[in-house]
Amino acid sequence: MVVIVYVIVAYDVNVERVNRVKKFLRRYLNWVQNSLFEGELSSADLEEVKMGLREIINEDEDMVVIYRFRSADAFKREVMGIEKGLGGEEVI
Amino acid sequence: MVVIVYVIVAYDVNVERVNRVKKFLRRYLNWVQNSLFEGELSSADLEEVKMGLREIINEDEDMVVIYRFRSADAFKREVMGIEKGLGGEEVI
Repeated sequence: MVVIVYVIVAYDVNVERVNRVKKFLRRYLNWVQNSLFEGELSSADLEEVKMGLREIINEDEDMVVIYRFRSADAFKREVMGIEKGLGGEEVI
Repeated sequence: MVVIVYVIVAYDVNVERVNRVKKFLRRYLNWVQNSLFEGELSSADLEEVKMGLREIINEDEDMVVIYRFRSADAFKREVMGIEKGLGGEEVI
């Protein structure tokens, strides 16, 4: 049985690594705004994301937070200002 | 009856406004990493946070996402790399 989880991934990484993290995460998740992604993952994909991130970030300088939920029903999302990602157009 | 919610606030704002947003949010929430706060709020405080943010950000350029939950039990948080905020020391 494939377990699906919903995640929010936020990262605070050195400017040298920001694009690599963004490019990597875009393969799995939806870009919401700079340094923030969301989306559904299988538990196998989640492990892949974590392994991939570990290869990109410097664990002594950078920080990545992964919030995991059973589904997107667990929260309400409210956006103030312009919608960059998700519904809005992505600013490269 | 005071309703308490748990929020994650992530922001992607122009560099000129980042410090004002950070200083403002620090009065209500816990700094997790750059552009990311978490914590418990009463619904009245949440309205205050939204009104305060509206006075600081430029709604045509900046984006703030507020994720709202019934409580912190709604999610699991996993940190990769160094813990800047919450348990770790805050890098000003």
